[in-house]
Amino acid sequence: MNTPSSPAPLVVAEPRLMRDTILAARRAGRRVGFVPTMGALHAGHASLVERAAVECDDVVVSIFVNPKQFGPREDLARYPRTLPADVALLGASGARWVFVPEAATAYPAGHATSVVVAAPAADFEGAIRPGHFAGVATVVCWLFNVVPADAAYFGAKDWQQTVVVRRMVADLAIPIAIEVCPTVREPDGLAMSSRNAYLSPDERRRAVALHEGLESAARHWQAGDDVALVEEAIRAALRAHDVPVDYARVVDPQSLVPPRPGAAAVALVAGRVGTTRLLDNLLLPPRP
Amino acid sequence: MNTPSSPAPLVVAEPRLMRDTILAARRAGRRVGFVPTMGALHAGHASLVERAAVECDDVVVSIFVNPKQFGPREDLARYPRTLPADVALLGASGARWVFVPEAATAYPAGHATSVVVAAPAADFEGAIRPGHFAGVATVVCWLFNVVPADAAYFGAKDWQQTVVVRRMVADLAIPIAIEVCPTVREPDGLAMSSRNAYLSPDERRRAVALHEGLESAARHWQAGDDVALVEEAIRAALRAHDVPVDYARVVDPQSLVPPRPGAAAVALVAGRVGTTRLLDNLLLPPRP
Repeated sequence: MNTPSSPAPLVVAEPRLMRDTILAARRAGRRVGFVPTMGALHAGHASLVERAAVECDDVVVSIFVNPKQFGPREDLARYPRTLPADVALLGASGARWVFVPEAATAYPAGHATSVVVAAPAADFEGAIRPGHFAGVATVVCWLFNVVPADAAYFGAKDWQQTVVVRRMVADLAIPIAIEVCPTVREPDGLAMSSRNAYLSPDERRRAVALHEGLESAARHWQAGDDVALVEEAIRAALRAHDVPVDYARVVDPQSLVPPRPGAAAVALVAGRVGTTRLLDNLLLPPRP
Repeated sequence: MNTPSSPAPLVVAEPRLMRDTILAARRAGRRVGFVPTMGALHAGHASLVERAAVECDDVVVSIFVNPKQFGPREDLARYPRTLPADVALLGASGARWVFVPEAATAYPAGHATSVVVAAPAADFEGAIRPGHFAGVATVVCWLFNVVPADAAYFGAKDWQQTVVVRRMVADLAIPIAIEVCPTVREPDGLAMSSRNAYLSPDERRRAVALHEGLESAARHWQAGDDVALVEEAIRAALRAHDVPVDYARVVDPQSLVPPRPGAAAVALVAGRVGTTRLLDNLLLPPRP
């Protein structure tokens, strides 16, 4: 395990070198943890790296702003790119390697293959961002072949993404463990996200609506309210902050269909704060 | 390398045991060759196993009649299943392991993932059998994770399938070498196929039309004829044997688009002999 005083991580761009490096570490008996990211790293990413560094001998982090998971009218061009700061953060968090592939290596000439996950990817983000999860699943499948780690670490903030990745890993028998780590929040409860950088000061204040809505939902859930009432509590909080709702739903945490009575659930919310889409979610414990 | 006097191969049904067995062999320094099949094995399959046994230390053969690559009106139910004879043939050909997964392990409850290859899978078989190549690519991706061999061997008879598999392996960085082996033929030139078992005696005689058409095409190609004339030569042979043509095309061997002048090409043919669809192809060498 590395410590915060570790040397700067080694930056690797070449997929074959990356793969050989991981395999050599594993052959030497080292457990390797992998944190896939799009860069613009924040304390949420740091928490994934730190968790991986606790559970593994070596940590590798990929930074790749994957064009295939952005729609034609989305924010690919302006997505924040902060590589020097990212590498500094990763050194402090205990990463040994940073994998920064060129787009041309992830998508060679004539690239034609997509990994498509149907049911759990169809609703919510999948409905609003057509092709988004095919882009995610395809690049994550590619990454898991190039970075054949023991375990991969994802943030719970993108809950549906974790469901889609788990589904793909199970269906294709990809030999990697998927670990989902708690969302890291700002002091007012806003979930950490690279896209928070887009928010104006006024938008930043209103962005707390998602967390407030989820907290309110949790109280209604604990009180035994119907799912419809729990969902309405989320929408009410977003309305109060003038944040249009993309969705506010309480569903089964693994299948994303309506929850079974008495079982745990997850509240999913997405809203638009100005031109910025923000997501958040909260697990709701089983109730009698 | 095994020899024809090898003991009967070990039959493995459990994916995790299969994977651990392959990894243990490779850790011991053995090169492992993999021949994925749907069973109903014939001399064409045997040639793949024998080639793998020459090039590798251990050979593993999978037998799995993959439901996802059959359309709803195709021959899944009547596809020939001959496991005892298959295992005997594999022992004689030098296979060490036979992997026979249950459909429920390849497609666990809630399975929702497809691997889709666009361009090289869209035309020809892909146009006639919607979803066929997604079924092939998905199960081959799964198999390559469960059977992490050094190399996988495919028959050239299903040429488009080899193009689709190569495309997927490149695009997803799947760490396996793809080897394509020559088509094995009956004395009259008919390409070996498990589906030849469907043919009546009269159909069996007419089935030679595909090979005759390809031989005729090769003569026209060598004579310098236009691609359109070369293709017409194939159709003429099928007409002469009363075999309706699904397609008869001369294309680039890797991209399956029209060939470049002076470059090699492949002639692809598919026809219907009675109710049985048969495929064949022939590589055409570069010409001035």
